[in-house]
Amino acid sequence: MSDYSKDLKVKIFGITTGKSICILNKIDAKDFGLFTGDRVELYNKRSKKRAVGVIDITANELKSGQIGLFEDIAATLSAKEKDLIDTKVTKSLKSLDFIKKKMDGKKLTNEEVVEIVKDITDDRLTDVEASAFIAAIYMKGLDLDETVYMTKALINNGNKISFDVTPVVDKHSVGGVNGRATMVIIPIIASAGLYMPKTSSRSITSSAGTADAMEVLAPVDLDFNKIKEITKKVGGVIAWGGAVDLAPADDKIIKLEHPLSLDPEGQVIASVLAKKASVGSKYVVIDLPVGPQVKIKDQKTALRMAEKFVHVGKEIGMEVDAVITDGTEPSGLAFGPALEAKYALEILEGKRFDNLAQKSCECAGAVLELAKKVKVGKGYEAARVILESGKALAKMKEIIKAQGGKIFSSEDIKLAKYKKEIFAKENGVIQEFNIKLLTKAARLAGAPADKTAGILLSKTVGEKIGRNELLLTIYAENKQKLEVATEFIEQNCPVTFKKIIIQTIRD
Amino acid sequence: MSDYSKDLKVKIFGITTGKSICILNKIDAKDFGLFTGDRVELYNKRSKKRAVGVIDITANELKSGQIGLFEDIAATLSAKEKDLIDTKVTKSLKSLDFIKKKMDGKKLTNEEVVEIVKDITDDRLTDVEASAFIAAIYMKGLDLDETVYMTKALINNGNKISFDVTPVVDKHSVGGVNGRATMVIIPIIASAGLYMPKTSSRSITSSAGTADAMEVLAPVDLDFNKIKEITKKVGGVIAWGGAVDLAPADDKIIKLEHPLSLDPEGQVIASVLAKKASVGSKYVVIDLPVGPQVKIKDQKTALRMAEKFVHVGKEIGMEVDAVITDGTEPSGLAFGPALEAKYALEILEGKRFDNLAQKSCECAGAVLELAKKVKVGKGYEAARVILESGKALAKMKEIIKAQGGKIFSSEDIKLAKYKKEIFAKENGVIQEFNIKLLTKAARLAGAPADKTAGILLSKTVGEKIGRNELLLTIYAENKQKLEVATEFIEQNCPVTFKKIIIQTIRD
Repeated sequence: MSDYSKDLKVKIFGITTGKSICILNKIDAKDFGLFTGDRVELYNKRSKKRAVGVIDITANELKSGQIGLFEDIAATLSAKEKDLIDTKVTKSLKSLDFIKKKMDGKKLTNEEVVEIVKDITDDRLTDVEASAFIAAIYMKGLDLDETVYMTKALINNGNKISFDVTPVVDKHSVGGVNGRATMVIIPIIASAGLYMPKTSSRSITSSAGTADAMEVLAPVDLDFNKIKEITKKVGGVIAWGGAVDLAPADDKIIKLEHPLSLDPEGQVIASVLAKKASVGSKYVVIDLPVGPQVKIKDQKTALRMAEKFVHVGKEIGMEVDAVITDGTEPSGLAFGPALEAKYALEILEGKRFDNLAQKSCECAGAVLELAKKVKVGKGYEAARVILESGKALAKMKEIIKAQGGKIFSSEDIKLAKYKKEIFAKENGVIQEFNIKLLTKAARLAGAPADKTAGILLSKTVGEKIGRNELLLTIYAENKQKLEVATEFIEQNCPVTFKKIIIQTIRD
Repeated sequence: MSDYSKDLKVKIFGITTGKSICILNKIDAKDFGLFTGDRVELYNKRSKKRAVGVIDITANELKSGQIGLFEDIAATLSAKEKDLIDTKVTKSLKSLDFIKKKMDGKKLTNEEVVEIVKDITDDRLTDVEASAFIAAIYMKGLDLDETVYMTKALINNGNKISFDVTPVVDKHSVGGVNGRATMVIIPIIASAGLYMPKTSSRSITSSAGTADAMEVLAPVDLDFNKIKEITKKVGGVIAWGGAVDLAPADDKIIKLEHPLSLDPEGQVIASVLAKKASVGSKYVVIDLPVGPQVKIKDQKTALRMAEKFVHVGKEIGMEVDAVITDGTEPSGLAFGPALEAKYALEILEGKRFDNLAQKSCECAGAVLELAKKVKVGKGYEAARVILESGKALAKMKEIIKAQGGKIFSSEDIKLAKYKKEIFAKENGVIQEFNIKLLTKAARLAGAPADKTAGILLSKTVGEKIGRNELLLTIYAENKQKLEVATEFIEQNCPVTFKKIIIQTIRD
């Protein structure tokens, strides 16, 4: 069927919105019968490029007969001023029916999931529609089949890197908080002769992501070829995943999940495994921390997720082991990119061995066992030997150098110039740190955007502390942020002490 | 707690987006730790006005230290170029927790519903967040209590009109399709001495809304005072509801429901009754058409909704009767604003009496009975007498005149200049019209934006039609739209004929 269409003349607006927005004069919008937020199909007659746009409506900024393009969609259409754009109303998208179907609690077929992922990838779904889809999978869930469909659809609609080396391995932590085990694990694994090209995220809600922390030591904004080259040469790399667009639909979904902190289980599994598959990982260890303050609150949920990870991995030809770990206390003492990077280097340098180092060796051991480098039961020991021998530190220096970094020692890491020490107000034994409050305080101090800002604890859970002894230090890049974070810590005590009297009974 | 804040200098962008969008340079966004779509609290130091903005990020259009304001938010802040805006990250909204609570299937309290409605009214929730709320109430439902809370919250967060006359009555149809019973009912009711100030919608998905059709005869864009004045003077008015902002949160919710055609039952009930309450309606008849092609598919759903309407009405001090009506065939023969307006006038002029006239008299009768103008059981007869006496036509002319209209006769209504007649391809008796296909075709022809476009059937369900006899006529304002609609009708037959052989059994 032919559709009603019109040629409109381009006017470019130099604004980036991250979305495919175009503007119509209200007369043209009325002629098409369109409202703000509706979609149009655009075809640039000069460049022969096509795009789908979401419309805003203006009375004054454009004349009837013009179409305004923001920079994002102007680029897609290779549009110049005064190009003629053949404009028509998009047919209703099939994927909207499939989203509605999921909202009505019905199971989606492989084809339906593929269609939704394609439309998200190509920006044909608006944020409002994609948000409804995420709400639907949060409320109605993705079953095991749907999770497999989603994983495959994400893989097929993204980029892939194929390495000439083998085996490629990986490790991923679901919903941990602070501490950069990855920066300890990768040099151990690479020292053992496996290949671990890690693409990691920047933080959205925590005090630092692995990419934020690694960036303190070396550039992480690496392209495909660079990642391949470094992996081949030194066995490991810690890059920012956003630069390589492994699963663009997933990146968009994660952005929309952020405001309501939604993380539908099936989507988390699909998201993680698709990204590992895109870099050709053969052996993947999934770390599932459990604790009242982390994402996974109980063993039962962790076990269910573990089984799904293993199953979906198998369906896409990947060997997955899932490990359930203790997530009841902070991993190490640091919150913030520079502090966490320094901390990880100190572990590699043999200056610290605490719960973060322990976890790193256990997880590295699990990878060595899964990849059959060592016998089952011998992984932890092998990893610890590599760490203590100094080989992991030497390997980390190679990785930093290969990525173009210049900082090789924990002592060379600069911290923020403003700091405030917070002292204990009573004697006692530390029972618990409130990780949420510490994260919030680190963020108020400026982390992760301000790399050198954050919080460093002086004590671990279970340690004694005396009144007026140093509890923690806040670091910030300017005075105002230091004050805001300090005020927050003073008003919201992030530590509880062990009490012997549990309850008092009175008359 | 004090927050990190900065003064940024205004640069105004003359674009209307319908949303509170502001733009930050990427350096400032990073300094605040903000991403596209996050919210900032803004305070204009000169005008002392406050607003909440949702951010876009730019690298080039602004320098660090500037803030870009689109027209909507510039107006809210009474901002001029170079005003200083105290900018800070908004604290997380409580309503986000309540939306999450609903998503998790828990019942909301009155206070929680109030908070969400307030944040939607004041644009503090982004479209993505509000969309997740709508998805939540679609999937998890609003129970009877929550529906009452929602209704009251919509009433309290909107405008009200109070009339000096009594009683004010109303009638509302849920999910009907074509045909403008309202334009017949109001003059009947007003002739009987009741007051019926109707604020109605423009169409979003059908071929015309009541406001679209009435606008063919008279202006509908009336303000508070005008609606009051006309109601007092002639007893009835048919205005566009969008001009009086009776329930701004509801208008925003409806806009977000549109892309996925979501209409959570509780929200429909709250939306309808809040708008009636805002104009002080004392007696309200709710028409619930049931049929396979309309919104309510079965009697059971209609009955459940009917009971909820009556209950919620009582809770807000309104007498509500709900009537379940036959929605299995088109109401009258017209699809499109001018065609439907003409059709309604022809009924008032005594030129037609069909299922639309019948329905109008029955519904008007139900209103007369509810408002105790006539005894129960005598309403239909009373309404029909008023219609047949010509009093309703005279009243409609008074209403048109009072609203400033100039068209008083069906013969003066102009139709589109391009038309195409479609003929039957076989002999038979009409069993069913496909209302969705007819609506789609009317919209392809240009309705409702093009007022004179649409479709006029020549036959009703149950009538005989001969091969090559006129089945329907398509009207359009330009040739291209006429061709598109004609092609659609020819490829998608909108009529089925009665068959005697239901099934053939073969070897």
